[in-house]
Amino acid sequence: MAIVIIAPTRDTRIWAQGLLALDPTLEIYEHPHVPEDVKDRITCAITWLHPEGSLSVFPNLNIICSMGAGVDHMLADAQLPKGVPITRIVDPALAWSMSNFVIAALFNHHRNWEHFRKQQAGKRWAQADLCEVPLRVGVLGLGVLGKDLAQKVSALGFYTAGFSQTPKEVAGIESFVGASQLDAFLQAVNVLVCLLPLTPATENYLNAQLFERCSPGTYLINVARGKHLVEEDLIPAIHSGQLSGAVLDVFREEPLPVHHPFWEHPNIVITPHHASLTNPDAAIPQLLENYRRSIQGEQLLNTVDRKKGY
Amino acid sequence: MAIVIIAPTRDTRIWAQGLLALDPTLEIYEHPHVPEDVKDRITCAITWLHPEGSLSVFPNLNIICSMGAGVDHMLADAQLPKGVPITRIVDPALAWSMSNFVIAALFNHHRNWEHFRKQQAGKRWAQADLCEVPLRVGVLGLGVLGKDLAQKVSALGFYTAGFSQTPKEVAGIESFVGASQLDAFLQAVNVLVCLLPLTPATENYLNAQLFERCSPGTYLINVARGKHLVEEDLIPAIHSGQLSGAVLDVFREEPLPVHHPFWEHPNIVITPHHASLTNPDAAIPQLLENYRRSIQGEQLLNTVDRKKGY
Repeated sequence: MAIVIIAPTRDTRIWAQGLLALDPTLEIYEHPHVPEDVKDRITCAITWLHPEGSLSVFPNLNIICSMGAGVDHMLADAQLPKGVPITRIVDPALAWSMSNFVIAALFNHHRNWEHFRKQQAGKRWAQADLCEVPLRVGVLGLGVLGKDLAQKVSALGFYTAGFSQTPKEVAGIESFVGASQLDAFLQAVNVLVCLLPLTPATENYLNAQLFERCSPGTYLINVARGKHLVEEDLIPAIHSGQLSGAVLDVFREEPLPVHHPFWEHPNIVITPHHASLTNPDAAIPQLLENYRRSIQGEQLLNTVDRKKGY
Repeated sequence: MAIVIIAPTRDTRIWAQGLLALDPTLEIYEHPHVPEDVKDRITCAITWLHPEGSLSVFPNLNIICSMGAGVDHMLADAQLPKGVPITRIVDPALAWSMSNFVIAALFNHHRNWEHFRKQQAGKRWAQADLCEVPLRVGVLGLGVLGKDLAQKVSALGFYTAGFSQTPKEVAGIESFVGASQLDAFLQAVNVLVCLLPLTPATENYLNAQLFERCSPGTYLINVARGKHLVEEDLIPAIHSGQLSGAVLDVFREEPLPVHHPFWEHPNIVITPHHASLTNPDAAIPQLLENYRRSIQGEQLLNTVDRKKGY
């Protein structure tokens, strides 16, 4: 029994050391440094953005663990070993950071903060300007992250609605379920926060047709995945007034290419995919616990439904 | 019985019309248009920033109503008629706007928003930058506004402390009372939100000596009155590192003079006294109710203690 960590964009040593600190008896290899004669002893793969096909070389995997909350890039691998259970991280700190980031974005919009920053740059004092944009907050996706955000926004006294594919009970918010209630949801809100999982069904979800169904002047906050947004549809929707602007933390290509038109658009706020990042301190004990359970044949925590995609 | 409205910086017609809409039998005069032979029939003055001495010409006042939450400018009038009860507005919308403004300021600081706005201006993608500034929020003054803010910040999961002159019970926050606990309060927090009333005891409260007692890097948010801050002490405290920056909505002179050094300081955010403004729709029914009570000799609402200053 041994573990492989495959995460080309991360410092895998930190994760290996964190696991060994909790259990010094673990046998851990860091991709691509896995000797040939070890491969059939690897039973657990811990991955983030693994290269396509890099998991199929281990014939005896019995658990694949995402190092983060999302598994969309994992499931995109056509050579992903079939039948092996997949788990993901459910980190309270992920929801904490995500909600705080979205609250910053919401309140900046609500209090016209950008406008007053520009006023200060010009040393202009303009008290009479509109200072409160009404907020009716719609949360797309009521998973762990969406629910935490919706509860906080509602507790702050703002109308909050949630949209999900299956019914979700969240105190204090109006809940809309399924495609037949999407129009009612979109008309009920004027801010749309995307916290959907990325699946084949939700890829390109934020597109011109959806924007047309929003109430005019809707403000978009995308903190889920870049592939949720059809990027070429955004600026036309802002120019038509259908959207009033956007905060985008995620993009189809990251880093966002320097010539991308989003950078210079006055109504688009860009942050570098930093709304919420998996904290190894929170994730490592969960990885270890699932590894232990996989060895002992116990039920795994936070398993992923491959069909649903989350 | 008649009413005078004295508010040189406001459109008094809106207030007169609002009162008349609720009670068309009212006799209302708008300063300075008060005929001589009417002055002794004026029993109620409704005021905001009234000119010094302008109330002393009415010999039969039996109520003076502030049009806002503060009465500091009213009490500064040496010729203010003695013995006449003073009332102020307690408007839930004032607390609503104030808390929302401060939450915007807090979360901008927490998530380093200014930094990422500058990154976008330079088309720089810098994911690794610090993205969460710890927040330990201290609220100076636990009146209606301070309490509302403290409860909301605490509900969002951040450590919240309050400081007041008399003991106040606010669920979920640590409460510090009186001068002997000021140092403990200042050391417990790293954000200081000033929501004190302006009185002779609190004028110049935010000064170099106070900043020296703060924990290093404390962030200041002043949304109370310009006179709370000794303005020349702020930039030196930022340069020494004792403060990390400030959001200022109020100033000793408003509009803030164009040559004031605050305008260009990179760590000072300026807004034009727009955090929270009295809404006539909320205030007018309260003014009318207190006028009615003054006529019928009933107990007035939201009276001001002249000695305390609020």
